Amino acid sequence: MSSVTPLNQPQSFGRTILPSIHKDSGLAIKFPAPDILKSTNTAIVYCEGNFGAIDGKTANGLVRYSEKYEILSVIDSEKAGIDAGVALGDGPNNIPICRDLTEALAFAKTVPGYFIFGMAPSSGMLSTYERGLVIEAMSHGMNIVNGLHEFLNDDPVFAAACITNNVTILDIRRPSDKKDLRMFSGNIADVTCPRIAVLGTDCAIGKRTTATILARALNKYGVKAVMVGTGQTGLIQGARYGIALDAVPSQFCAGELEATIVEAFETESPDIILVEGQGALSHPAFSTSSFILRGTCPDGVVLQHAPGRLNRCDFDQMPMPTPASEINLIETFSNTKVIGLTINHENMTDAEIGSAIISYESELGIPVTDALARSTDHLVEMVLSSFPQLRKKPAGRVN
Amino acid sequence: MSSVTPLNQPQSFGRTILPSIHKDSGLAIKFPAPDILKSTNTAIVYCEGNFGAIDGKTANGLVRYSEKYEILSVIDSEKAGIDAGVALGDGPNNIPICRDLTEALAFAKTVPGYFIFGMAPSSGMLSTYERGLVIEAMSHGMNIVNGLHEFLNDDPVFAAACITNNVTILDIRRPSDKKDLRMFSGNIADVTCPRIAVLGTDCAIGKRTTATILARALNKYGVKAVMVGTGQTGLIQGARYGIALDAVPSQFCAGELEATIVEAFETESPDIILVEGQGALSHPAFSTSSFILRGTCPDGVVLQHAPGRLNRCDFDQMPMPTPASEINLIETFSNTKVIGLTINHENMTDAEIGSAIISYESELGIPVTDALARSTDHLVEMVLSSFPQLRKKPAGRVN
Repeated sequence: MSSVTPLNQPQSFGRTILPSIHKDSGLAIKFPAPDILKSTNTAIVYCEGNFGAIDGKTANGLVRYSEKYEILSVIDSEKAGIDAGVALGDGPNNIPICRDLTEALAFAKTVPGYFIFGMAPSSGMLSTYERGLVIEAMSHGMNIVNGLHEFLNDDPVFAAACITNNVTILDIRRPSDKKDLRMFSGNIADVTCPRIAVLGTDCAIGKRTTATILARALNKYGVKAVMVGTGQTGLIQGARYGIALDAVPSQFCAGELEATIVEAFETESPDIILVEGQGALSHPAFSTSSFILRGTCPDGVVLQHAPGRLNRCDFDQMPMPTPASEINLIETFSNTKVIGLTINHENMTDAEIGSAIISYESELGIPVTDALARSTDHLVEMVLSSFPQLRKKPAGRVN
Repeated sequence: MSSVTPLNQPQSFGRTILPSIHKDSGLAIKFPAPDILKSTNTAIVYCEGNFGAIDGKTANGLVRYSEKYEILSVIDSEKAGIDAGVALGDGPNNIPICRDLTEALAFAKTVPGYFIFGMAPSSGMLSTYERGLVIEAMSHGMNIVNGLHEFLNDDPVFAAACITNNVTILDIRRPSDKKDLRMFSGNIADVTCPRIAVLGTDCAIGKRTTATILARALNKYGVKAVMVGTGQTGLIQGARYGIALDAVPSQFCAGELEATIVEAFETESPDIILVEGQGALSHPAFSTSSFILRGTCPDGVVLQHAPGRLNRCDFDQMPMPTPASEINLIETFSNTKVIGLTINHENMTDAEIGSAIISYESELGIPVTDALARSTDHLVEMVLSSFPQLRKKPAGRVN
């Protein structure tokens, strides 16, 4: 696993070259015939008004990591002209933020294969303007990647546009047909490798990012780690195993996740399985983590927390829980142990991160680190100290 | 609210008269034209091989209480000839159990308005035989009440049968369209009356029954209690407020329940709202109670437990939780208090019920009773002792 280097982009992209593109925005630019190109995995990510923000988390995640698509550009007029990596505070990544679809197409030079709707509004539905924009992208010959709760293939207008433009829509969140949905069976007991759930104290706090970094670091160390995604962003990024749990009828949530984990175990024979959490077990609105704990029956939990976040991101009046209270809830709800705390350092200086690590380690008696701001060795050691049987596997072992 | 007295039934129904009906089973009986009769609320409940058992809980519930339908008979060839009330251990209720649809139609004399599929298999799907039987019922002019996860209106064969036979199918579990599904908003804080969730230590343990009896007893006492249903059985029984929570995508579970409670509060101005629980918060497969606690934000919880049940009904190898552990889990998960324990007396003598009440009261320090085997005064007192502001409301008050 490695992050994808975007192709077809000028190496010198930056604020300075955008004005000339802006001038072309109103022109009827001729694009190559889409049939030739639409099978490529290049993509434009739409995130108007939300790039870098919480509702833009699908776009934010894709510019950081995408196994399946080459991300050419992001659309967000409010940040147009800024490098997407810089906008996220990660440093330049040569993915431009464009003003609109016209500018993004002009920048791409050829029609990209995919238009990814990169926002995750809690309503899960397209606005009227967005419907028109998606139809426009299809008319250019782009396939659509849709992670919303609204399934566009079920909409006669979009279904007709697929036929007319010879493109497809991927409704990422669509669960299996009812007849194929699985109930929790207890088969998780047959998964003999350790399973770790990466949970959090809030939504949009970095659970997926930490799980992804942990999986990569473990694989690099020589422990074969497979990640099971549970949200639309991870699935769009290219997770080989996963379901969009929040779109599954609640009766089948634990069973669908259990079956996905069993499938990953049987196919990959991994040393360890990491399961991406959702929301927070304590969250008033998004407590799908209850099914993640039930379906995973994890041997350990890594808890992601943002010490600099005062209130829950969706509920301004509601204070964040403490790690101690979330750990108590998790360990009361499930027969498992929280093996470590990971820090999301939003609103924190590096010194504050260091202090937080020391203070939480002292308070909670478990390892604490920051997956982005500290060496991933700490993250790997967090797992190895709880599962010593995984230590010193030969590096580069093949399955 | 009162239980419905079935009409059109011989007062002397019992085992002795069934053989003569059996003889007619193979005949091509002429039924009256269905158009004349299908608007009535009479119903046959299908529960083959499961009446009185756990997967027959919809049928079991309907013969005990039905506000919406007049239950004429139950179909279960294994118990054919037995009075349905006797089969449940409740005493005779003059609802016969018939061998098959032919016998049930012969007994009904006129074609009933509804064929209710009264089983709740965990798969939630019809078998091939059952598909044929439902089509046959439609061909007689009966409307279908379907509480399964499989929505029959979406099936072209059933849709065509509706048109052909001029009947309708009620897919009880179908959630609102995606665009109408509601997220948790915090509006539950505007519901100023107490809210009690009736949870349990297992599936199919009597949560709905206890909640129904409690609601009736409170209303009789003079406290206006409104019940919010969360499962298909309660909805088929005629709950005015409710959703089939296990069919709702998990993202919207807390919000849909919250909105239903708010609607019940605004419409009914009740003194108290009772919310039916589902499964158990500790259950490995059915922990939808997590969303019931989140959506309700209950002021109190009544916990239903079966001391005589050794293992979970869906997991033979898994011991039942203790009330103490379930109470600890509930009170850790939610900012609420378990105000009382209610007993399901399966596999218990009356003396054992008495001992269990004394012993749990001593152990847990909360009131304990049995909604069916003890006076409902105890049940009412359980609520009043925790919510003294509800005491001594004038009986018969309007709204």
